[in-house]
Amino acid sequence: MHAKDTIDFHIRAVWASISRMYNSQANDHNGTMSIGYVLLNVDKEGTPSTSLGPQMGMESTSLSRTLKRMEEQGLIYREKDVTDGRMVRIFLTDLGKEMRKLSRNIVLDFNKTVHERIPKEKLDVFFEVMVHIQSILNSQKLFKEKSAA
Amino acid sequence: MHAKDTIDFHIRAVWASISRMYNSQANDHNGTMSIGYVLLNVDKEGTPSTSLGPQMGMESTSLSRTLKRMEEQGLIYREKDVTDGRMVRIFLTDLGKEMRKLSRNIVLDFNKTVHERIPKEKLDVFFEVMVHIQSILNSQKLFKEKSAA
Repeated sequence: MHAKDTIDFHIRAVWASISRMYNSQANDHNGTMSIGYVLLNVDKEGTPSTSLGPQMGMESTSLSRTLKRMEEQGLIYREKDVTDGRMVRIFLTDLGKEMRKLSRNIVLDFNKTVHERIPKEKLDVFFEVMVHIQSILNSQKLFKEKSAA
Repeated sequence: MHAKDTIDFHIRAVWASISRMYNSQANDHNGTMSIGYVLLNVDKEGTPSTSLGPQMGMESTSLSRTLKRMEEQGLIYREKDVTDGRMVRIFLTDLGKEMRKLSRNIVLDFNKTVHERIPKEKLDVFFEVMVHIQSILNSQKLFKEKSAA
């Protein structure tokens, strides 16, 4: 089996192209793909900084770096939770909310183009296979954790 | 549209799970997924160090770091090209060749499991959609480069 025939090769290549495209579009607005993802993941009620990482599947060191940069750019601010003083929530500033709309439009544009050009039946199968691959990966992980125990 | 319904969310999540799985398996042998990918991309005739990055879609700084670690672990060695003295080729040591087999088996195992559990007709559609998405991304890039010129 050649590398280009493997499932992971395809997924990795497409993901690399998507991040290049998102980073290039974000760069036009002085941002990065990671900043866009954070903007899209912060709720109106403020999102606990500790739950952003797992939610986005992002390493905590690179998330901290991104949050620091976003604070400096005036996109977010941090505030202690009113009931739990140990918990810090991230909120969007007005500029952050504006940039959130922009990020949302970039994501929607790309998804709209894909939905327009690829028939629904094929996309349905595509999503089904993705979910199936994910479940295979999850069960392998479980198996590994069990055999290690 | 919720983030979990987007195409990029699915691709990113599945790719994150695949890298976690590969990294966890590589870790059992004192390696990383990136080391595994380099092992699989070095030819018998030696691969020019400059062509590895583009071939693997890897940034040059993180590739240099990986190659340095692999040299220290005795997996690869570098040699000047016999005809072009400015070109450096990467070769696998005997240990590198052994670890290459191991990497290959890990990749094949995962791909075999997927092929066993997901019907061929669905995987065919999946690959077709991936190639189509890739071509949409390439044409958007071209369009952007044109409009920027």
